[in-house]
Amino acid sequence: MNIKNVFNCGWLRKNAPDSCIVISSRIRLARNINKIPFPHWADEKNLKKAALLIQNAAKKCSYLVNSECYDLNKTTPLDKQYLIEKHLISPEQAISINGYLIAGDKEMISIMINEEDHLRIQSMDAGLNLFEAWDIINKLDSDLSDKLNYAISPQWGYLTACPTNVGTGMRASVMMHLPALILTGQINKVLKGVSQLGLAIRGLYGEGTKALGNLYQISNQVTLGQAEEETIDYIKKITNQIIGYEKDAQEVLTKESNEQLEDKIFRAYALLTHARIISSSEAMDFLSTVRLGVSINLLKNVSLEVLNELLIVIQPAHIQKIYKSTLTPEQRDIKRAELIREKLLIT
Amino acid sequence: MNIKNVFNCGWLRKNAPDSCIVISSRIRLARNINKIPFPHWADEKNLKKAALLIQNAAKKCSYLVNSECYDLNKTTPLDKQYLIEKHLISPEQAISINGYLIAGDKEMISIMINEEDHLRIQSMDAGLNLFEAWDIINKLDSDLSDKLNYAISPQWGYLTACPTNVGTGMRASVMMHLPALILTGQINKVLKGVSQLGLAIRGLYGEGTKALGNLYQISNQVTLGQAEEETIDYIKKITNQIIGYEKDAQEVLTKESNEQLEDKIFRAYALLTHARIISSSEAMDFLSTVRLGVSINLLKNVSLEVLNELLIVIQPAHIQKIYKSTLTPEQRDIKRAELIREKLLIT
Repeated sequence: MNIKNVFNCGWLRKNAPDSCIVISSRIRLARNINKIPFPHWADEKNLKKAALLIQNAAKKCSYLVNSECYDLNKTTPLDKQYLIEKHLISPEQAISINGYLIAGDKEMISIMINEEDHLRIQSMDAGLNLFEAWDIINKLDSDLSDKLNYAISPQWGYLTACPTNVGTGMRASVMMHLPALILTGQINKVLKGVSQLGLAIRGLYGEGTKALGNLYQISNQVTLGQAEEETIDYIKKITNQIIGYEKDAQEVLTKESNEQLEDKIFRAYALLTHARIISSSEAMDFLSTVRLGVSINLLKNVSLEVLNELLIVIQPAHIQKIYKSTLTPEQRDIKRAELIREKLLIT
Repeated sequence: MNIKNVFNCGWLRKNAPDSCIVISSRIRLARNINKIPFPHWADEKNLKKAALLIQNAAKKCSYLVNSECYDLNKTTPLDKQYLIEKHLISPEQAISINGYLIAGDKEMISIMINEEDHLRIQSMDAGLNLFEAWDIINKLDSDLSDKLNYAISPQWGYLTACPTNVGTGMRASVMMHLPALILTGQINKVLKGVSQLGLAIRGLYGEGTKALGNLYQISNQVTLGQAEEETIDYIKKITNQIIGYEKDAQEVLTKESNEQLEDKIFRAYALLTHARIISSSEAMDFLSTVRLGVSINLLKNVSLEVLNELLIVIQPAHIQKIYKSTLTPEQRDIKRAELIREKLLIT
């Protein structure tokens, strides 16, 4: 496989709703084909059969007209890492047998084949756009269900490999940037509150309160006994509440004429635009701080879209795809610094 | 007393010889008036008498035409600290009884009255300019000797309070910036070598190898049995050798295509031009690194003169004089950052 388009995220578009705080919205549906064992129990023959059925069905879907299908068995480790960084495949999918990825035009919709379930259909959009993402994925799902015989029970709904997904098979999530809640020490209260409301909240690439780049993902836990629109509406409401808390915290920070905060923000911006060597975690940290600076209107000439793009492209596999070579961690730190300067100083 | 001109260092001029490495040259002469006890043994009457004689003599010297005389008993602690930071008075002089300072036009020549000796005449210049400084101070000294009855012995030469100054009474010194010798780990060898050659070498504001801003002062120790020109010539030769070592070390650093060094230099520049809060020692550290960047031609649009000026004006009393108010350390750190941004971004 040769993944050519290094950066083709259609969902990172401009002026998305609440994009100051909500980076992206994502919905995925877990689906399985009737009378074929779930991937973890299926033999190779069945996995191939499922993959073929799904690929053929996908070809006939209008939403997947310009899609590409990647055979993950023939994908290099670097390319797999690259797809993980883009959230197009999961780390589990990267090591699956007979796994495939169908990536729609601009990567806004995609299907993982033979991950935990036969199909994991995904729709992504920028900002707080859960209903728009739902609208697209719902139509694609209907389209696919005409062509595939889904495993469905009149009593339980969609049947899935893991019982936590049975019912709607839907996981809706938003990725939020919450730097002011962290700086004002309120994040734990918010995390606790969200959990008590029955939603899951976790840091990017990790459980618990330590979030890389102050990024948190909020998603539903319930998939049973609740219509999809109901779940999405609930997440949207809670997300709006958290947006309110983050905005309040940002206002508190700006009202205090906080030289410490200004210093932190300008130093982060200075280092991003001048460093010659920068690690992934240092860069994430500075990008998060600069993003806060843009949100509170302290940094005027930095675009949120560029910062959002950087949060993705500074990752190790992206750096190597962009510079078209396998790089050591030390070489990546140099190229990462180069890429960040280039992207930030153009805007 | 009211010290008005905040920055009036005539000796920080442009294009001085070897100014990339030698920041300044300084010569001071210790002189005493015959038949008046040395200041530490003199009573108030004698101290006043000495001061008056010197002030009257100074008024008639052509080199001191536009000079100002400051009574240190009437000088505020802030102004005294300010004069110490400018190297116009010593910390000992600041607490002396009946001490005065005569500061010549642009502070290139000055006289401390009633420090350890009745007169400590000083001449400063930019870069490696010891003979130029000597020429001026020698003429001023001749002029003063016509008007004052110096304590002098045909056998020993000029008599001074401390025996280490007897003879010429001269201390000649250069202030050198040696960042590459530190980075390449060669500084201790150089320090040792200089000591073995009979010269004193010490860090700015401190003994030993730990030098604030990588600044080192080299001076003669011998004042007896050697003509002034001979001493100066010797210091100049050793200084030229050290310049050679530092240049070699800088060349080694640049030849290695040293990303670590580039990163260090650009980060220092970034933080100086963006920080909103900066301590004196952090600023000294970054200024030293940026100065190295200019020396090795990595930073093109930064002027050495501005960096040299900043090394002086970022000091606590200077910051308060510039912003015309008594400031807490926290307030100074904010104003220091403001001043540095202003000076560096103009150039």
